[in-house]
Amino acid sequence: MATLVMKFGGTSVADPERIRRAARRVAESRADGHRVAVVVSAMGNTTDQLIALAAQVSRAPGRRELDALMSTGEAVSAALTAMALEDQGLPARSLNAFQAGMRTDAGHGRAKLQAIDSKMLERLLDEGVTPVITGFQGFSPEGLLTTLGRGGSDTTAVAVAAALRVQERGGCCEIYTDVDGVHTADPRLVPEAPKLGAITYDEMLELAAMGAGVMHARAVVFGQRHNVPIHVRHSQRPEPGTMIQRETSRMESIAVIGCALKSDLGRVQLQGLPRAAGVQAQVFSAISARGILVDDIIQTEGPAGVELAFTVEHGELPEVKMAVTEAIERLGSGRIDLEVGLAKVSAVGTGMRSHAGVATRMFQALGAAGIPIRNITTSEIRISCLVPQEHGELSLRLVHEAFGLERGERVTLAEQLGTA
Amino acid sequence: MATLVMKFGGTSVADPERIRRAARRVAESRADGHRVAVVVSAMGNTTDQLIALAAQVSRAPGRRELDALMSTGEAVSAALTAMALEDQGLPARSLNAFQAGMRTDAGHGRAKLQAIDSKMLERLLDEGVTPVITGFQGFSPEGLLTTLGRGGSDTTAVAVAAALRVQERGGCCEIYTDVDGVHTADPRLVPEAPKLGAITYDEMLELAAMGAGVMHARAVVFGQRHNVPIHVRHSQRPEPGTMIQRETSRMESIAVIGCALKSDLGRVQLQGLPRAAGVQAQVFSAISARGILVDDIIQTEGPAGVELAFTVEHGELPEVKMAVTEAIERLGSGRIDLEVGLAKVSAVGTGMRSHAGVATRMFQALGAAGIPIRNITTSEIRISCLVPQEHGELSLRLVHEAFGLERGERVTLAEQLGTA
Repeated sequence: MATLVMKFGGTSVADPERIRRAARRVAESRADGHRVAVVVSAMGNTTDQLIALAAQVSRAPGRRELDALMSTGEAVSAALTAMALEDQGLPARSLNAFQAGMRTDAGHGRAKLQAIDSKMLERLLDEGVTPVITGFQGFSPEGLLTTLGRGGSDTTAVAVAAALRVQERGGCCEIYTDVDGVHTADPRLVPEAPKLGAITYDEMLELAAMGAGVMHARAVVFGQRHNVPIHVRHSQRPEPGTMIQRETSRMESIAVIGCALKSDLGRVQLQGLPRAAGVQAQVFSAISARGILVDDIIQTEGPAGVELAFTVEHGELPEVKMAVTEAIERLGSGRIDLEVGLAKVSAVGTGMRSHAGVATRMFQALGAAGIPIRNITTSEIRISCLVPQEHGELSLRLVHEAFGLERGERVTLAEQLGTA
Repeated sequence: MATLVMKFGGTSVADPERIRRAARRVAESRADGHRVAVVVSAMGNTTDQLIALAAQVSRAPGRRELDALMSTGEAVSAALTAMALEDQGLPARSLNAFQAGMRTDAGHGRAKLQAIDSKMLERLLDEGVTPVITGFQGFSPEGLLTTLGRGGSDTTAVAVAAALRVQERGGCCEIYTDVDGVHTADPRLVPEAPKLGAITYDEMLELAAMGAGVMHARAVVFGQRHNVPIHVRHSQRPEPGTMIQRETSRMESIAVIGCALKSDLGRVQLQGLPRAAGVQAQVFSAISARGILVDDIIQTEGPAGVELAFTVEHGELPEVKMAVTEAIERLGSGRIDLEVGLAKVSAVGTGMRSHAGVATRMFQALGAAGIPIRNITTSEIRISCLVPQEHGELSLRLVHEAFGLERGERVTLAEQLGTA
């Protein structure tokens, strides 16, 4: 008998029929003898509807009241899910943030979970009652409802799993969603990309950051920190999905586990910046003050001074241009060049740490097809190449093929590195 | 500077435009220097929509989870109302049942308010923040959300007003609704019926019980017990409505303050019941076990044994018949007669207590028009006559006219009793 957390996202509880199906999934796990806590998101597009209402009563709704408003979405789905469970003969109890003891800081709209007072959860589980917890929300030290921001419900689920020590108790955190797990590449772009049985937290984080949208990074980081195995699986299909977990020895025998494509990127190049301390801070603080995420920063020094290059999402370019232009004016020198229409293809794998030759094979695959590489960045377990957007999808397929990823976890290191 | 509670019902917050209008009403009261606490119902038909959802996930949703579900309706309107107030430049804070300290018993679906912990409310008011409280709900000793049942939001408002001691502080509980106050009769049936400026709790209770649907009896009883003046007024019109309050000396100078009509009644007559103790209890316990309300019970003894007669709402007759038939079988003797198509016309007034002649004048008015009176019942401040339904509306108009009610509170006692 394991202790499980089962989390159902917005699409998995989008209507009464799906809520009943989710309840049947929970009933199956209970019938297998497991102790189960459930976490739910708001139904389908409820959150959008609530935001639309808010916009109609206020020109600039405050974050605090928006949180109070948003939190009702999960309260509705939690109550309905509890009813559907009881209808299956399973005692159940919906719990809002106060009742589930979800303490956060006071950061309305992007609150951070600080502690879960799991006494009530443990008591209900001991009594054979299935708690159904509102995802995405908590309460502040002041006693106000807060929301956790993007990826919040996944984070709630992983945090509840950590509080219930599911790993010690033979369980995991199951994330039920509308995909069947993590594939070696996005199957919409690479149809032959197989589903992976397991992947490390680090690999999932790199893939997520590089454009694979299966799970929000925040929940994965939380899982990694508390060693909570996260099972991502399809809410309408019975077969297992992908387990996100700590590295196992088997995983080292593969260099590249997956690849990803991020499209619609723009590159910003700054030339001729003054050679002075604090130049970078001035440029990037102007950008981050506008809430824009930057990655792949490269700095070099040329004859005309410091050169900086970085990529941002295409849609952010106008704001970035404004921010950087202001920074250049303050700095007294510099010139800005923008390039649009780029995509980034990345290969990710924990096994890369201990094996050379991965980068070479990737460059060869792209080079042989005549695809120009505009930029290269790496992390310990990732290699990314910036390519023209029109070659993006082809690049992804070439990298997928180069590392034999159509064989999934059965590919060998020798095959991947071309030494077979 | 008075302390006021302003309560907006479902139609008064049915859409964003109305919520903004309600917020403007609150802003006006604040601009007049008053301290204001707001209580809101769920928007329009939200409650029906939630019940429909529940019915789709469960064949028999439990009361506890229904309460958790229902309570989201007021949470939405409270947050939106707080936003609309802030948009008008008024600091505001939505409070759910936990935050507003609304303690109830554990009677899910029909909980009773037991205490209000008004510390948070007082603190917000002292800080110049307008609290916006979810009506209709509370939390049980177990820490679960409860709902107060029918008339719940009005009861919340009056209870908050009592906790804030509005009467000592020169204020009252304002109920904003879609009627402009209490009239001497339903203006849809008696167009010339004027609005009353004031009415006693007892009169309002009698009128409500007799079919005048302006305010739910429960909130009126609560107001009476805690001496909270209740101002019923139209949410879209500026003029004052009707104040429900303690008796004043002026009120004794009018015998009949209003009249009401209750239609679609059926009469049940039982004849030949055994002359034994406990007969009545057997009959009425069988009926009340089915949750059916009975009124106007008359008992007489005829040659064939005990006779009982009472009225129920038309729609309840089939169930009443079943219950009574079972009771008769257990008692061993008795016969049941049903009569449908009846209506009850009532005249109500605190002044009746001290003045005879009111009944006579009412019977004369009906008799002169040839309307047969099938039954008469009275309370200290009410006289009711059961008449054939086809004469119901005419009877109401005749009684209204007989007591000069078209003149409203300006009618004199002499005029009412025909001694002028």
